[in-house]
Amino acid sequence: MKEKPSHLTKIEHIGIAVKDIEASNVVFKAMLGEAHYKIEEVESEGVTTSFFQSGPNKIELLQATRDDSPIAKFIEKRGEGIHHIAFAVNDIESEIERLKNEGFKMIHDVPKKGADNKLIAFLHPKSSNGVLVELCQDISD
Amino acid sequence: MKEKPSHLTKIEHIGIAVKDIEASNVVFKAMLGEAHYKIEEVESEGVTTSFFQSGPNKIELLQATRDDSPIAKFIEKRGEGIHHIAFAVNDIESEIERLKNEGFKMIHDVPKKGADNKLIAFLHPKSSNGVLVELCQDISD
Repeated sequence: MKEKPSHLTKIEHIGIAVKDIEASNVVFKAMLGEAHYKIEEVESEGVTTSFFQSGPNKIELLQATRDDSPIAKFIEKRGEGIHHIAFAVNDIESEIERLKNEGFKMIHDVPKKGADNKLIAFLHPKSSNGVLVELCQDISD
Repeated sequence: MKEKPSHLTKIEHIGIAVKDIEASNVVFKAMLGEAHYKIEEVESEGVTTSFFQSGPNKIELLQATRDDSPIAKFIEKRGEGIHHIAFAVNDIESEIERLKNEGFKMIHDVPKKGADNKLIAFLHPKSSNGVLVELCQDISD
């Protein structure tokens, strides 16, 4: 059996909502000192994403690909900015159960396929002080 | 000479604005699976902070201690939620110069003492897609 450290093991990435991902790729390359390593569209979420590495962590830029995308709605309401925190987990199903037992409300009770080769599930921000939290497990785990 | 890797080396912490730090300490302990390791007041910023470890990263909760605190204004305008991303740097003065040369606008041109034994400087969110970015250097470095 492989080791399964419990709970949230690190910040996997921070998701940032942007209007123009090509322009923002230039800004975040200048900030982080290194270009994005991947562009990926997630059709089911209506977003195009780009990923930057920052040591053990990543920055994910998100641009809406259609008007009813959650990112389009976020930007309309609050403007560009930090959208969510994603934590790495080793066993997403047991973490969903643990967090529900702790009283957190899940947006996804069942993990779904996300960007960057991950199984993901979001917690509802109402149960976590307005913070939209994502759980991420590597699909190769 | 000690090694000085360039640029932003990882996400040092995520700052989260909360109304009631004692209530939120309970929420984030339940989420992260471990209690905060420190409470610290930063009088100059009008905030009380608490810190949680998450692998190589930290979560910093911030509660305003007075009405004119930046955190009080943030919550009044946007509600509780993610306030800033802090990146670790090894040489904050050279990073401030590098980022200014890249066209970023600094809130602090000169580092100041922050919470958790750090020298800090903030970038203005207008030059980084609405994201408030902090640079952090360990004072013991």
